[in-house]
Amino acid sequence: MSAVDLIIKKRNGKALSTGEIQAFVDGVSDDSWPDYQISAMLMAMFLKGLDTRETSDLTLAMASSGVQLDLSAVPGTKVDKHSTGGVADTTTLIAIPLVAACGVPVVKMSGRGLGFTGGTIDKLESIPGFQTAITAEQAIAQSVRIGCAIMGQTENLTPADKKLYALRDVTGTIDSIPLIAASIMSKKIAAGADAIVLDVKCGSGAFMPDLASARALAHQMVDIGEHVGRKVIAVLSGMEQPLGNLIGNSLEVLEAIDVLQGRTTGDLLDVALTLGSEMLQLGGLAKSDSDARQLLKVTLASGAAVEKFKELIAAQGGDPQVVDEPSRLPQATLRRTVVSTHNGWLAAMQTQDLGRALILLGGGREHKGDALDLSSGLILHKRLSQAVQAGEVLVELLGNNADKLEQAVTLVTAALVISPEKPVFAGGLDKPPVIYEIYRGQS
Amino acid sequence: MSAVDLIIKKRNGKALSTGEIQAFVDGVSDDSWPDYQISAMLMAMFLKGLDTRETSDLTLAMASSGVQLDLSAVPGTKVDKHSTGGVADTTTLIAIPLVAACGVPVVKMSGRGLGFTGGTIDKLESIPGFQTAITAEQAIAQSVRIGCAIMGQTENLTPADKKLYALRDVTGTIDSIPLIAASIMSKKIAAGADAIVLDVKCGSGAFMPDLASARALAHQMVDIGEHVGRKVIAVLSGMEQPLGNLIGNSLEVLEAIDVLQGRTTGDLLDVALTLGSEMLQLGGLAKSDSDARQLLKVTLASGAAVEKFKELIAAQGGDPQVVDEPSRLPQATLRRTVVSTHNGWLAAMQTQDLGRALILLGGGREHKGDALDLSSGLILHKRLSQAVQAGEVLVELLGNNADKLEQAVTLVTAALVISPEKPVFAGGLDKPPVIYEIYRGQS
Repeated sequence: MSAVDLIIKKRNGKALSTGEIQAFVDGVSDDSWPDYQISAMLMAMFLKGLDTRETSDLTLAMASSGVQLDLSAVPGTKVDKHSTGGVADTTTLIAIPLVAACGVPVVKMSGRGLGFTGGTIDKLESIPGFQTAITAEQAIAQSVRIGCAIMGQTENLTPADKKLYALRDVTGTIDSIPLIAASIMSKKIAAGADAIVLDVKCGSGAFMPDLASARALAHQMVDIGEHVGRKVIAVLSGMEQPLGNLIGNSLEVLEAIDVLQGRTTGDLLDVALTLGSEMLQLGGLAKSDSDARQLLKVTLASGAAVEKFKELIAAQGGDPQVVDEPSRLPQATLRRTVVSTHNGWLAAMQTQDLGRALILLGGGREHKGDALDLSSGLILHKRLSQAVQAGEVLVELLGNNADKLEQAVTLVTAALVISPEKPVFAGGLDKPPVIYEIYRGQS
Repeated sequence: MSAVDLIIKKRNGKALSTGEIQAFVDGVSDDSWPDYQISAMLMAMFLKGLDTRETSDLTLAMASSGVQLDLSAVPGTKVDKHSTGGVADTTTLIAIPLVAACGVPVVKMSGRGLGFTGGTIDKLESIPGFQTAITAEQAIAQSVRIGCAIMGQTENLTPADKKLYALRDVTGTIDSIPLIAASIMSKKIAAGADAIVLDVKCGSGAFMPDLASARALAHQMVDIGEHVGRKVIAVLSGMEQPLGNLIGNSLEVLEAIDVLQGRTTGDLLDVALTLGSEMLQLGGLAKSDSDARQLLKVTLASGAAVEKFKELIAAQGGDPQVVDEPSRLPQATLRRTVVSTHNGWLAAMQTQDLGRALILLGGGREHKGDALDLSSGLILHKRLSQAVQAGEVLVELLGNNADKLEQAVTLVTAALVISPEKPVFAGGLDKPPVIYEIYRGQS
């Protein structure tokens, strides 16, 4: 079938066969389909949908369009994690050393931040000397030696997905659940882990604004895992406010250290423990959630997790002393605050705007390839549902450019809602939900 | 709004404003929209539709993307005609000199054949010396002088439509009623006539296979006319078999001459008279269909119509002697026949395949720009519903290449269905309908 015939078949709402999906992805990879045919197909897929079999086929075809990692040299069940992205979402920096300290090997490929969401690779690069551009061979060897490695995406990972994503970005075909699911899962499958724990975020600081669409995405990805023979579990978690209180690259490293050292508890730790528990169970180190949580807590309390983080830093050329002397992380020179003008309760946040404030401060990027100011960021002094007094600091902003700080203060001020009455959250709760539910698949 | 925002708006099923449609067409015209965004928009328009206001806006924006003819120098109400295309559809060569002889001025822009359908410009070029590449100024001056002119499309007519059509052709977005309607009507509006009679064909030899889709297209185009202030009438006519009995460029000129001279009657004359009647009424020369038909018949019988055709030929540099000496038209050297193997009735035809047989014989084109053998063609000896005897000639094929003639014979043989019983056609008729209905708009 020609490209036009395949486009017409999808346009007419028919399911494409495995071979037809492969032909499409081959056409994308070898440039035999021109961009205008690819984008017509993407719009037809967007509007007519893909069933789970088609989505799984698309995932596998994209996964095999480039290099796929072979982690068989690392003993044990390799478990990966992935977050759909949010603000102050630093769970990777906590969960990876924690589960590795428990005995689950992890070779994790992470991305850079874009738009309102941060990226693990940028955060790690705020640690002086830390190398993220390591090869797959180096990451595998390191994981054999110390149980974990975190690397940037290899150049040739899922090139078909890269090209499709770039076209989707400029043709209004981003927010399609099957296309998002196939994009994420193709990278995870190419990255080679045996099992994957997904953290699907929903709320004002996530890509999926509502629980229904987050749930649909979570189910789609777990179902793809079943189709392609990888065990996948999805945690649905809330992002109505930043997950941690510190937003920014070096600041999020700092908060991860605080959590690993037991100084900071709260939502960030709760989500990291939930993800860690699922990873331990998938890795075969615990038979139940309560067993897993017990092991995680003991490991945290023993200091083994923070030691594993130091090991990870040292193994990748970074300065492990930052763990004990956080002042070795990049420091911003200017500070401003956003102060409450009323008594009341912190009732709502336009969380994405806090991510956008970080972009203004230089700590996030508008476009791929933008350089970052790793020292800048925001510190939340209040979380949703907390009472505030007029004059109290709500958010502290750290940066190195007075004009940009001023703009960020304006943006953050407008993003916070102080209510005269105590707010009530989804399901009648007095705080916004952190973990909504966990989807483990149909079987 | 950016290109992506406009694509998303249409993707979400919203109507685009007049300004937004203009921005899209401007982006097509000035190349500021890359092809991949145009094709994503076309697929969104295909799947989400365009309402009549949007379709009218698209039509006007495409019409004004290039040169628009100003026919005001020609006195009277200028009436154009357009057929959606078929096989042996030679009504232009009959209706134009006929209505011009009655007093309705016509400046007609015609196209070349493509695929299974022929084109008036190719047919006229089979007349030795006939110039179709005349300028708009020449056509207008000629129409002032003799009442009619038939010219090829000017280079810069509706360039936005040309580009959109080329992209639709390769992205599976051709058969959309609003996109087809806007494409046709943009050219007709740019061509400058005050009123337009459309001949919308349906059946096995037309683009619209069924009456429902032909009717939808007809209504859409007439409604666009109402929106943009041009009087438009659509005749829905049948194309279950070739309209005339002669298929091919010089052969269709020959049959038009036969009709104009009163030697040939039948479906081709019937449709030409129906179109001519509507043109006369729109041109203000007749108050009713019966008045109009009376005038047309008198004009035909008087010889004035065939004289007008001679005048037209002479005015455009052609040899008017072909009218009286058809042997001056190009002649094929080889002849084959398709003969019935059974007694029975001619019950059905894959009419498009007769057009494809003409392509095999060199008289039609697969691709734009292909050169034609103007002498080749097919002669139908039987029409649908006629009784045939075993051994009787059904179709005669004329060409200049024995191998291709052989292939064409095979194709034509397979395209004809001889039934042992007398066939019954749509609506219980003993012949397929020629004129289904006429749509004159909602007001």
